[in-house]
Amino acid sequence: MSETGFDIDVALKHVREAKRTLATLGRRVKDRALEAAAEALVAERATLIEANELDLAAGGERGLSEALLDRLRLTEARIAEMSEGMRQIAALPDPVGEVTSMWRRPNGLEIGRLRVPIGVILVIYESRPNVTADAAALCLKSGNAVVLRGGSEALHSNRAIASVLTRAFVSAGAPEGALVLVRDPDRALVGRLLRMDDRIDLVVPRGGAGLIRAVAEQSTIPVVKHDKGVCHVFLDEAAEPEMAHAIALDAKLQRPGTCNAMETLLVDTSLADSVLPRLAAAFLEAGVELRGCPRTLQALSDPRVRAATEIDWDTEYLDMVLSIKVVDGLDHALDHIARHGSGHSEAIVTTDYGRARRFHAEVDAAAVYVNASTRFTDGCEFGMGAEIGISTNRLHARGPMGLQELTTYKYIVFGDGQTRTASK
Amino acid sequence: MSETGFDIDVALKHVREAKRTLATLGRRVKDRALEAAAEALVAERATLIEANELDLAAGGERGLSEALLDRLRLTEARIAEMSEGMRQIAALPDPVGEVTSMWRRPNGLEIGRLRVPIGVILVIYESRPNVTADAAALCLKSGNAVVLRGGSEALHSNRAIASVLTRAFVSAGAPEGALVLVRDPDRALVGRLLRMDDRIDLVVPRGGAGLIRAVAEQSTIPVVKHDKGVCHVFLDEAAEPEMAHAIALDAKLQRPGTCNAMETLLVDTSLADSVLPRLAAAFLEAGVELRGCPRTLQALSDPRVRAATEIDWDTEYLDMVLSIKVVDGLDHALDHIARHGSGHSEAIVTTDYGRARRFHAEVDAAAVYVNASTRFTDGCEFGMGAEIGISTNRLHARGPMGLQELTTYKYIVFGDGQTRTASK
Repeated sequence: MSETGFDIDVALKHVREAKRTLATLGRRVKDRALEAAAEALVAERATLIEANELDLAAGGERGLSEALLDRLRLTEARIAEMSEGMRQIAALPDPVGEVTSMWRRPNGLEIGRLRVPIGVILVIYESRPNVTADAAALCLKSGNAVVLRGGSEALHSNRAIASVLTRAFVSAGAPEGALVLVRDPDRALVGRLLRMDDRIDLVVPRGGAGLIRAVAEQSTIPVVKHDKGVCHVFLDEAAEPEMAHAIALDAKLQRPGTCNAMETLLVDTSLADSVLPRLAAAFLEAGVELRGCPRTLQALSDPRVRAATEIDWDTEYLDMVLSIKVVDGLDHALDHIARHGSGHSEAIVTTDYGRARRFHAEVDAAAVYVNASTRFTDGCEFGMGAEIGISTNRLHARGPMGLQELTTYKYIVFGDGQTRTASK
Repeated sequence: MSETGFDIDVALKHVREAKRTLATLGRRVKDRALEAAAEALVAERATLIEANELDLAAGGERGLSEALLDRLRLTEARIAEMSEGMRQIAALPDPVGEVTSMWRRPNGLEIGRLRVPIGVILVIYESRPNVTADAAALCLKSGNAVVLRGGSEALHSNRAIASVLTRAFVSAGAPEGALVLVRDPDRALVGRLLRMDDRIDLVVPRGGAGLIRAVAEQSTIPVVKHDKGVCHVFLDEAAEPEMAHAIALDAKLQRPGTCNAMETLLVDTSLADSVLPRLAAAFLEAGVELRGCPRTLQALSDPRVRAATEIDWDTEYLDMVLSIKVVDGLDHALDHIARHGSGHSEAIVTTDYGRARRFHAEVDAAAVYVNASTRFTDGCEFGMGAEIGISTNRLHARGPMGLQELTTYKYIVFGDGQTRTASK
């Protein structure tokens, strides 16, 4: 047991017990627990804000940047948002218990594939305390127990939120171990947790690239990664010019700091003197720094456009910077994406049926778009209602992860006395 | 490059190129390649047997046991079986290209979930050279490139088989890098391969517990584990006696060395003096060593039945040994399974509707049976046509892994110019 009085082994024993109960917990109890928590968060907002002030004061003393302090801050509005998020998750369908397929074998056995919770999910995250509520709600709704390990800078806030949630959950009939907050800020404990593959089934890191890399490297538990997004929009020679213009601008500008924003624009050579100059002017006007390949520089001949280096093609700017490459048709674009894309979101703008089909078929990414912005790769935009992240894994979950992606399956088999001996 | 003239980095460059081609390879080409390979294996059986004799001679000199030499041996009959296996896989439906669901969003975007190959699969296996053909066929059919690393004791055989397969695949139009055999027996190379998470997407170890543990510990690539099976059959108080008898015998005896065979029999206390004695007599008659809990010993009062120790409840015998425990009803049985089961296959025998439902719902295992033998957990018995293994992972694939489990998905999105800006 550490000095904080928190004993992870005891906590995980509660989680293990909760795991069994949660697996068969009915929708009504889960939703009631989420509603109760939504109510309690608002009712106890003064306590939450008080705890948050301790974190803010400590953060100020430690010299955290204003941006970080802002992410850390809990306001009445933010608490109302958290609360509303819980209600929205309660309103979503229960992902557990669906038999996704069922078939009969010649010997009469009936085999069904039943959706079940994954088990115990460890969420490791940074400053924003709303993740505590968010992750707890998604895990409860999907029947998983959750172990939350937030950043030490938000420890008071996270403790306060977790206490409110746990009381509300338990009052509605959920097991106590459904939610465990790691109350010990000791960093070494994270390393231990990441090797508990006998007690934890999945790790979801939420935060910057450094956090994700560190988790992936240390963990012996499967990790769903939310890696970088180097996303492309390819303007095909048969692109409708207005649509090309609108999609390219949206993919870069609607929110440049997101993983599904465009980082490189690929332009068919036939559009280099028509669509490209007008688009470049709009980007420059909007304050985007442009870095072009030699043919782009030639087509634009604007001193504000810098020359792109090899590094640019692999860079996720997450910023008001865009690299532009002029390509010789679809094959050239596909080669560039295969080489430099991060497998996140890729788009083509075209009116050509055959090239649209080829782009869908040949691009290897979580989401492949024809005539739409890459910015739609998002749990809400996909209609999942909520997301715990966007996976750049190839296995288990790919792309936006909603409630269904927090489940796995088991086979349930209905027999009448079948044996292999008799089946011979 | 190693002394064998095999350069893994060059080989993996071919694999990378093949990966793109394979992802969209039509069913006709894949099936033609498998048919050609089936034919070539039989046509070139003399060459294969000759190569195999080199391995057998070397194995004899190194003092391999007769059992190991037998597993290593290629005969005309075994080659014919390999060939037939390829034809059977050719006859299965193509798992790639299915859109498993598709929906329309309020903004008109249509989002489809498309089944695609995983990419590059590394199969690490021991002595049996037929795995070379088996794994190559399953991976080709599912559109994956495969890197095969067999045991050094079968290197000549595996080289000969891989050469035959590659020639046949290429002649039918499959890319050369679809199949790469690691021709360098250096063990350090395996360690390097297991950290190539930028080039290999999944590792499937096939072999003993030692191999699987070593792979899981070293790999930074996702591993589909085929772990131990500590499977239970629970004879409920409402079990039909003849059915209970037949299922328990089948689960233990039909093939005791398999992971889905029963290792522990749980018997409701009400059956301890009726069903149990007759069943125990049949097991003893068949030569099964019995290890019982105190109540079992009391009920049977047979000196041939030994007392079980705590270790027995967690042991996968894979042998003619069975532990038996008398339990007080379903809850007690569920507790025992939750504590000692390995999450593989679990069965209840009962005529009681409510307890059958509870067993299905509450047991956490890849396959949960009512009134059937645990021995049915198998790709062929489940109707998958073929299997690359039985997964005890919770994520990606659980239970028997057929062709579908060698695929993942991507989202294909059909738009008409949608942007987030306009959706606001």
